[in-house]
Amino acid sequence: MATSYDPNNVFAKILDGELPSHKVYEDDRTLAFMDVMPRSNGHVLVIPKKPARNLLDAEPEELGYVVGVVQTVAKAVKKAMKADGLTIQQFNEEAGGQVVFHLHFHIVPRYEGQPLRPHTGEFEKPEVLTANAEKIKASLGK
Amino acid sequence: MATSYDPNNVFAKILDGELPSHKVYEDDRTLAFMDVMPRSNGHVLVIPKKPARNLLDAEPEELGYVVGVVQTVAKAVKKAMKADGLTIQQFNEEAGGQVVFHLHFHIVPRYEGQPLRPHTGEFEKPEVLTANAEKIKASLGK
Repeated sequence: MATSYDPNNVFAKILDGELPSHKVYEDDRTLAFMDVMPRSNGHVLVIPKKPARNLLDAEPEELGYVVGVVQTVAKAVKKAMKADGLTIQQFNEEAGGQVVFHLHFHIVPRYEGQPLRPHTGEFEKPEVLTANAEKIKASLGK
Repeated sequence: MATSYDPNNVFAKILDGELPSHKVYEDDRTLAFMDVMPRSNGHVLVIPKKPARNLLDAEPEELGYVVGVVQTVAKAVKKAMKADGLTIQQFNEEAGGQVVFHLHFHIVPRYEGQPLRPHTGEFEKPEVLTANAEKIKASLGK
């Protein structure tokens, strides 16, 4: 029933260094980077380094660690982006909204009166992603 | 800056037994129950028993534990409801979509070709909630 992990997914390539990303945080077990098609300004993704397809097949201990990082990064995103709130999303399987099949948590900063941007498939300008990543990095642990 | 926990929120009343709920899972530290205004059939909420306003003020160790329960319950929901996928959501502050100010994770089963129901504010029939809770309980740990 369970589909196995595909090592050629985009996030595996980011972890391998085959594809670039705008990094916000990294440790031995996790990586956080800017979503290149943000639903709002400052949208960040947090992933484990260990392969897991999604929440359903992740090792529980690994999952707990990743969520700790989600919390740390979420606080930094809220502060750096002066957001009024945060929406955390995690999609499982295609019907659940999943597009990349490597476990990831979306941290989407929210601003009063601004609905989420639709999934346009448009890429954010790299200079905006770089500037946001810098701001969030500077807020980490503060 | 941080707003403090309001002990009169609806989920605190469910935890106190002041308000009823359709329970799916309970242990010393967490409770899972049916969302009374489900975005899809089988929508479950997981909350810690310890007061926390949302992801931002939860104790990291507590948060990790809650997410472990989210994983366990999510698997049971997917199996019991024969869902094709799952969307996990967690809202922080009003701008982030939060309505009840006690930390909670939404486990929303997803079915091919079925968009999420809008937030109509309509209550699901109690007999549907009871039947779904029974099905999910029966799938726990299987």
